[in-house]
Amino acid sequence: QSSVTLYGRINTTVESQKEGTADRKVVVANNSSRFGFKGTEDLGGGLKASFKLESGLNSDDGRAASTFWGRDAYVELGGSFGAVRLGNFTPESYFATADYVSMHNHDTGSSSDALYGGPFRSSNKIGYFTPTYNGFSASASVSAGEGQAGQEKLFDLAANYVGGPLHLGAGYSKEGDRSQIAVRGLYELGAFTFGGYYQRADDGAQNRNVYRASGMYTLGQSEFHVNYGATQGKGAFAAQGKTNQFTLGYNYNLSKRTKVYAYYTDVDAKLNSKDFSSLAAGIRHNF
Amino acid sequence: QSSVTLYGRINTTVESQKEGTADRKVVVANNSSRFGFKGTEDLGGGLKASFKLESGLNSDDGRAASTFWGRDAYVELGGSFGAVRLGNFTPESYFATADYVSMHNHDTGSSSDALYGGPFRSSNKIGYFTPTYNGFSASASVSAGEGQAGQEKLFDLAANYVGGPLHLGAGYSKEGDRSQIAVRGLYELGAFTFGGYYQRADDGAQNRNVYRASGMYTLGQSEFHVNYGATQGKGAFAAQGKTNQFTLGYNYNLSKRTKVYAYYTDVDAKLNSKDFSSLAAGIRHNF
Amino acid sequence: QSSVTLYGRINTTVESQKEGTADRKVVVANNSSRFGFKGTEDLGGGLKASFKLESGLNSDDGRAASTFWGRDAYVELGGSFGAVRLGNFTPESYFATADYVSMHNHDTGSSSDALYGGPFRSSNKIGYFTPTYNGFSASASVSAGEGQAGQEKLFDLAANYVGGPLHLGAGYSKEGDRSQIAVRGLYELGAFTFGGYYQRADDGAQNRNVYRASGMYTLGQSEFHVNYGATQGKGAFAAQGKTNQFTLGYNYNLSKRTKVYAYYTDVDAKLNSKDFSSLAAGIRHNF
Repeated sequence: QSSVTLYGRINTTVESQKEGTADRKVVVANNSSRFGFKGTEDLGGGLKASFKLESGLNSDDGRAASTFWGRDAYVELGGSFGAVRLGNFTPESYFATADYVSMHNHDTGSSSDALYGGPFRSSNKIGYFTPTYNGFSASASVSAGEGQAGQEKLFDLAANYVGGPLHLGAGYSKEGDRSQIAVRGLYELGAFTFGGYYQRADDGAQNRNVYRASGMYTLGQSEFHVNYGATQGKGAFAAQGKTNQFTLGYNYNLSKRTKVYAYYTDVDAKLNSKDFSSLAAGIRHNF
Repeated sequence: QSSVTLYGRINTTVESQKEGTADRKVVVANNSSRFGFKGTEDLGGGLKASFKLESGLNSDDGRAASTFWGRDAYVELGGSFGAVRLGNFTPESYFATADYVSMHNHDTGSSSDALYGGPFRSSNKIGYFTPTYNGFSASASVSAGEGQAGQEKLFDLAANYVGGPLHLGAGYSKEGDRSQIAVRGLYELGAFTFGGYYQRADDGAQNRNVYRASGMYTLGQSEFHVNYGATQGKGAFAAQGKTNQFTLGYNYNLSKRTKVYAYYTDVDAKLNSKDFSSLAAGIRHNF
Repeated sequence: QSSVTLYGRINTTVESQKEGTADRKVVVANNSSRFGFKGTEDLGGGLKASFKLESGLNSDDGRAASTFWGRDAYVELGGSFGAVRLGNFTPESYFATADYVSMHNHDTGSSSDALYGGPFRSSNKIGYFTPTYNGFSASASVSAGEGQAGQEKLFDLAANYVGGPLHLGAGYSKEGDRSQIAVRGLYELGAFTFGGYYQRADDGAQNRNVYRASGMYTLGQSEFHVNYGATQGKGAFAAQGKTNQFTLGYNYNLSKRTKVYAYYTDVDAKLNSKDFSSLAAGIRHNF
């Protein structure tokens, strides 16, 4: 009677990390491993119901995420009108921008994007997703404040366009006087893929710019990656200092589901205590 | 080798709620969403082994239930003699009475039965379930006190009868000098279904009566629901005040597994701070 | 696309337990129940990727293990060279010794081995497993200290040999100046199986010897078990006192997956408060 799909990803690295002025150390690290259940029911007349439950887990020490179904816990009704989604789900503005260009390791672990930020919330949301029309799709969601102190309604908007080799996206989110807006592009040119985004975040008093560029060169089962990001800020953001992040990566795809990989990532911050670098090697297995 | 069934329910509403004298607020709410694993093994000779693990989850914000497998975590041996069950499982006295007549939304969420109560426990139980004979079945369980302070053995008895359109049930539970007993009836009359229960709860010093009546009218894929309950109490129960609960509901069944619905529920308490009302719309999807 | 296996075990007992000088009490108890997901992907060329997520659960009261995926959370790459495993997994030195001879109830619950011990850790590990060659296999793993106070690198070694009726094993683990080493044998002689291990544990200042012998007699679907262990120690270990553990067990296999069983176990310690005995009956169901 039931046709639930059980899926997930285990992504684990061995790393030599250096944080601030502390001694370099060897760690076994998790890179956003997760498992989930999902399913779709055809209701006839073009209508369908679907759900998703997705749970983060620490593939290094076995702990579950602090919010067990924090990645996704939603039910959705879809049709020719698009889809309406209720519950807990990852902001679409993130998928449309920062996630899209983080090609070397899916924006996870020690080489994940340390700069992109903003007012984000997954919980207590109502979302609407347009159908895809001529390569264009968009979504809007609002997360209820629910009368909790210090929490307001949070709005999230995202748009995506795919036209041949050109992929464009934009994301916007806002809670009270805090907001962020970002635009993203990605272009496929033979064996090369180039991507980047620009984000402007406002904490209500000051604002900050984030720039990110990434590139991938594919050769057989191998991928060569480079990823660079930088910030420019005012006020409190300036005190945090201009931060650069640089990553070189190599992936070897054993199959569509499984890769082994290595990368070197370096976060260079104005405050030395925020400096970070890691040389990592890992296995990523999708199931 | 294994033949485990993965099943569950996501049930999420958007509601406009008012509690006591606080401001009305919009919330996205969970209505007893859950997932589970279950399976049965045929042991031959009419004997079978089965198990169930069922976990509550918050479909609004992704949190797991505080006791992860708190809904069910049991192993069972069944045969012509009935079944013996060991572990953690929901009291049968509840299923036989309050749950049975709460037709509009499965006794979940903001319109769940706010009045039915008693000494209940799911953990550390041994249960016996009779076979069904001429529509009649019964069960008895005891939850071990395990020598823990303030905790005694808890007994739970339930009985059910189904004869054509007539459904009857009764439940009883007792821990020390606290107890509750309830009787329930439900009758199907064409497109109409009528149900109700009467419960008498004793907190060891005083007692309280709870009355509940519910009705459903089915028209094609639509269901129209009404549900009313009231309390009458002595001593401390009287100080809590007579409480009424009234719910009007509408369900539209998109399929056997999926419905969209709306309801208005109102709890009118003697203490204004306990007043509650909600206007809700939601999606329930079984998988 | 995915071919994940969902598996597990529910193992629950009803017991009459006596601890120290406290009153005898009836409890419903969990015996290392668990569920898990696992899968293997054939990568071609003799290479394969696999993963395992295994979670302990309390089948008596429904709580999940405090570390949700604490039993196992790993990804592995295997081939003719053996296998490399990353993440969180149970020490192989334990499986090769204490677990192997605990035949009556899989070294779980109130009759589990109360004497075997040592420096063990499951988290943040890199392991290598040899292929099996002429019945011989071995493994080595190291758990990263990750610069955490009071935690050093932990090494774990295990070896196993199976030659007809003869099964041999050894395990060694070491963290700083704490270590344990154990050797194990098991022999099948018709309807009889005999097993035992000897362990020497060193806490850095003193050491302790642990002896364990177990026997099983199989008759049709019935198994008759006896299990005896004892300690001998110096220094702080001597203050803990010589401890004996004795268990008599009976299993009735309803199928390969399901058994009912009973046992009596008695831990006799130098300190009376550590004395423990239990008369237990239970159901174990694998799925």
